[in-house]
Amino acid sequence: MGAPPDGPELDLLVGQARAGRARAIGRLVSLVENHDRRLPTLMALLAADTGRARVIGLTGSPGVGKSTTVAALVTALRARDERVAVLAVDPSSPFSGGALLGDRVRMQTHALDPQVFIRSMATRGHLGGLAVAAPQAIRVLDAAGFDTVLVETVGVGQSEVDVAGQVDATLVLLAPGMGDGIQAAKAGVLEIGDLFVVNKADRDGAHVVVRELRNMIALAQREPQDWKPPVLSTSAVDGTGVAELLVELDRFHAHASASGLLSQRRHDRARREVESLVLARLRAGLPVAGRAGLDGLAAEVSAGRLDAYAAADRVLNRS
Amino acid sequence: MGAPPDGPELDLLVGQARAGRARAIGRLVSLVENHDRRLPTLMALLAADTGRARVIGLTGSPGVGKSTTVAALVTALRARDERVAVLAVDPSSPFSGGALLGDRVRMQTHALDPQVFIRSMATRGHLGGLAVAAPQAIRVLDAAGFDTVLVETVGVGQSEVDVAGQVDATLVLLAPGMGDGIQAAKAGVLEIGDLFVVNKADRDGAHVVVRELRNMIALAQREPQDWKPPVLSTSAVDGTGVAELLVELDRFHAHASASGLLSQRRHDRARREVESLVLARLRAGLPVAGRAGLDGLAAEVSAGRLDAYAAADRVLNRS
Repeated sequence: MGAPPDGPELDLLVGQARAGRARAIGRLVSLVENHDRRLPTLMALLAADTGRARVIGLTGSPGVGKSTTVAALVTALRARDERVAVLAVDPSSPFSGGALLGDRVRMQTHALDPQVFIRSMATRGHLGGLAVAAPQAIRVLDAAGFDTVLVETVGVGQSEVDVAGQVDATLVLLAPGMGDGIQAAKAGVLEIGDLFVVNKADRDGAHVVVRELRNMIALAQREPQDWKPPVLSTSAVDGTGVAELLVELDRFHAHASASGLLSQRRHDRARREVESLVLARLRAGLPVAGRAGLDGLAAEVSAGRLDAYAAADRVLNRS
Repeated sequence: MGAPPDGPELDLLVGQARAGRARAIGRLVSLVENHDRRLPTLMALLAADTGRARVIGLTGSPGVGKSTTVAALVTALRARDERVAVLAVDPSSPFSGGALLGDRVRMQTHALDPQVFIRSMATRGHLGGLAVAAPQAIRVLDAAGFDTVLVETVGVGQSEVDVAGQVDATLVLLAPGMGDGIQAAKAGVLEIGDLFVVNKADRDGAHVVVRELRNMIALAQREPQDWKPPVLSTSAVDGTGVAELLVELDRFHAHASASGLLSQRRHDRARREVESLVLARLRAGLPVAGRAGLDGLAAEVSAGRLDAYAAADRVLNRS
């Protein structure tokens, strides 16, 4: 990704990113990933150009075919001449370096297409890192003029639910043999999906999963005027059902735009982003004595000599 | 669980919980779940009695057999005459009410045992709710004198990774047919496991998953003196391999106690808990004008008229 740009270079990079130059876009995403100190300047430069891209999140258990589905969606969107960005959000893992590369191979057909931008982003292990980094990376891609940004969460963990709060539409992927409908309910993904896709539809049991999902969605008793999440079947590996999926994604976007759901979600997202930054600044502004004392207080709590509330009071110099 | 207790009743409840009375323990966990205003008092009352229980987290994708494994572990621990508490952490979901009950059925054999306490806890949808609620619920169970507390996370989502940070030992469950080793790496669970269990060992492909996991763990290049997570096979439904699993859990606990890892983890946990409470109090203490203005500022950000950093400055009255 190259070394981080110097200060005066930031304007230039933003200009190149606006012109769709992949290298500049990649470097701006790296700034986000590395929590660069110039992010406030960068975000101020980008603000006016954001809010245009359609941001779609894909989530689901490992093995359901997320990467294959992303690749198939990119192909379908490119056939409509859209510019597409793919942001794969990885949990930062010492194991992931080599193991994940295999999956990216299927994106190689798109890797040479200048209208497609593909990028993995690690959360670098710090808690809440994704909550701040993902919306900023999405803003970079939005400002760079992509029509659609696909956000793929890689694997279980904190990232899944968080990312659902940061996109315009959430597509939940399932597959037969990965656990039935009750397992999906246990996974907590039913409530975050705007669309459900049962991939690997040629496998035994696919129609059972589709039926169970439809039943559970009907049971959730949403308001009649609310969006009723459709349940689709695909076989992303050969493209079966992907055209229909795109139709439903368009239909959802039209519904969300007309009903105010889209602007509500974007508003909520911005609110959470501001709140996260406010909390980060408050934390940075804690009394120095309190911060230095945190380890000592944690030792007292861990030894049972103090409870966490009393410790918090001491950090804040309130007792 | 009954109505919340009145103030003077809190002492009484704590006394009954210490005596192991299930109803009192359940009501204290409910106070935690409901973020009751008397939690500071409760936690101060409990502090001196905490730090004794061994806290084991179980995590893994839906369908790998977490509930069955928990039930088998409870049986094995009861055979050693340990008192055991099970805390099943549910993502709060409109879908989960009925769907999850089926799973609890297999715990019914333990439900009549007075030395076993079983409780589901919902996170009630607020972000960060689990991060505060889980350690507090674990403290209640710890103070109530359980030898072992098993924390089962139900499904994917934020809960999994969070819970790994709140227990003494994390057991990651996998199953053949749920995705291979690469999928496990993608799931981000490899780095959080102290023990790995491939359940449903009678199924095709189980030995392949075991071998792949062992290879990946070897590749992770931990320090020679570090704990090397073992990979076990079980068939929890008939108890196969559960005795060996318990042996490995004991071995891990002995290692963690001797090496300082256990006290380090408990210290880190206490630190995060204190920090969460500090942040919650800082948030509550935001300038009223800033809080009231948050929605308006979010609207500006979402419309691209302001960036999130500038909005955060305004909330804090810094610009």
